[in-house]
Order: sequence, then C-alpha cells, then structure tokens
Amino acid sequence: MANQFIEFYYKTFDQNRSSLAALYHDNSMLTFENAAIRGTAAIVEKLVSLPFEAVVHQVATKDVQPSNENGGILVLVTGALLVDKEQKPMSYTQAFQLLPDGQGSYFVFNDVFRLVYAAS
Amino acid sequence: MANQFIEFYYKTFDQNRSSLAALYHDNSMLTFENAAIRGTAAIVEKLVSLPFEAVVHQVATKDVQPSNENGGILVLVTGALLVDKEQKPMSYTQAFQLLPDGQGSYFVFNDVFRLVYAAS
Repeated sequence: MANQFIEFYYKTFDQNRSSLAALYHDNSMLTFENAAIRGTAAIVEKLVSLPFEAVVHQVATKDVQPSNENGGILVLVTGALLVDKEQKPMSYTQAFQLLPDGQGSYFVFNDVFRLVYAAS
Repeated sequence: MANQFIEFYYKTFDQNRSSLAALYHDNSMLTFENAAIRGTAAIVEKLVSLPFEAVVHQVATKDVQPSNENGGILVLVTGALLVDKEQKPMSYTQAFQLLPDGQGSYFVFNDVFRLVYAAS
C-alpha cells in the first residue's frame, strides 16, 4: 500500500501538483522547509506556488512502520530532486503519516519535507 | 518538548547507547537502514552493536507536528553523523513518533533512521 501511495504521490507531484489536493484533508499538516501549513487548500496553494516548473523526484529509500492501531502508517522517504534546468539533483527527506480515510483509501495527515545538504 | 527530547536522545546515543532503553517500550519499532526491529531489548541490542565506538550527532533541522489527538508527536530530524576516526561526516535523517507514556513523559513508538547519500 505505502509503495503504491508513494509512487502515486510523486508521480502526481511531478506531473500536476494541483491534483495532490485529493490526498490531503482539512486537518492535514505540511511542513515544507521552514513553512508550516494546515488544510488542503493552503497546502495545495503552497505546493503549486513552489518556484519551479518541472520537477522530478527519484526515490532512493522508503521505510514503513504502523503508526497506531487504527491502520495509520509512518513512511520515511529519502531521495533526489531535480528541478527545471538544474543539472545537479538535491537530496531530500520526507516523512508522511498516512491515515485511513474511511473509504478504503488513505490520506496524508502529516507531511514533513526537508532538503538534505551534504554534511561538512 | 520535542526539542528537549531530541537533545536528550542524541546526547544519550553519543555517550551511552545502552541508556536509550529508557526511551523505548516493548511495542516500539526501529528501522535502522535495512534492519527492522521491535521491542526495547532488541532495539537496544541493535543500537549497542552498531559497528562504531565513538559517535557524534549534529542536528541540522528538526520539525515537529502533532501525530494524533492523544498527544503524539511526529519529529523529522536531519543532521550529520561523525563516527570514530572518520574525518568526513555522513548526512542522515531520522523520523520519530513520540507518544505520551502516561507518566507525564514520552516514549519512542516509531523510529526510522536512514543515511542520506549525496544525490548524483
């Protein structure tokens, strides 16, 4: 399940960010770098307004654990991100908590995204 | 709270890994790179057996969101790790879900650790 979700999430992010609205609820939270945002509309507004046009996520690792007794799932992703005409990918990490939506599917309750810079 | 926890966690990790036992419960989960482990004893055995003596964590970012309505907390950390005589730090990311332990404190329910390699 988590594998399918992650694949769908980044495919949607890379092709049509506004369609990510379907994956959030009004109590969902997004921390994107230093911005903390709540609710589908504000989250999608943030994602759509990110200052790049073309973006490709390449997932390197994804790890999954149950997050509660009600079917919640914690996912930690690491990967690389290539934007616009940049030749050099950036490393990122993203943690999700996915919760059952009561309709047989899942929504993103927690979403925390950080670029990871080379340690020095 | 999360700030104090993270500071305490890495200080304990770097000084005396076996003392981390106090932060886990028997239903706690650790994913450390490709190893998935459950329960305090097995988690501490894994952490103590990691193939380095000296280790220093340097936290670069820590982001926090509530993970449920019962006081749970999701924390995403990024940082650098320096082990033994290595001169070159490694980047890492670590996601925790902390849950109230009913005694006024918190324990680690979810713990997922990954090294992050430079995107290329």
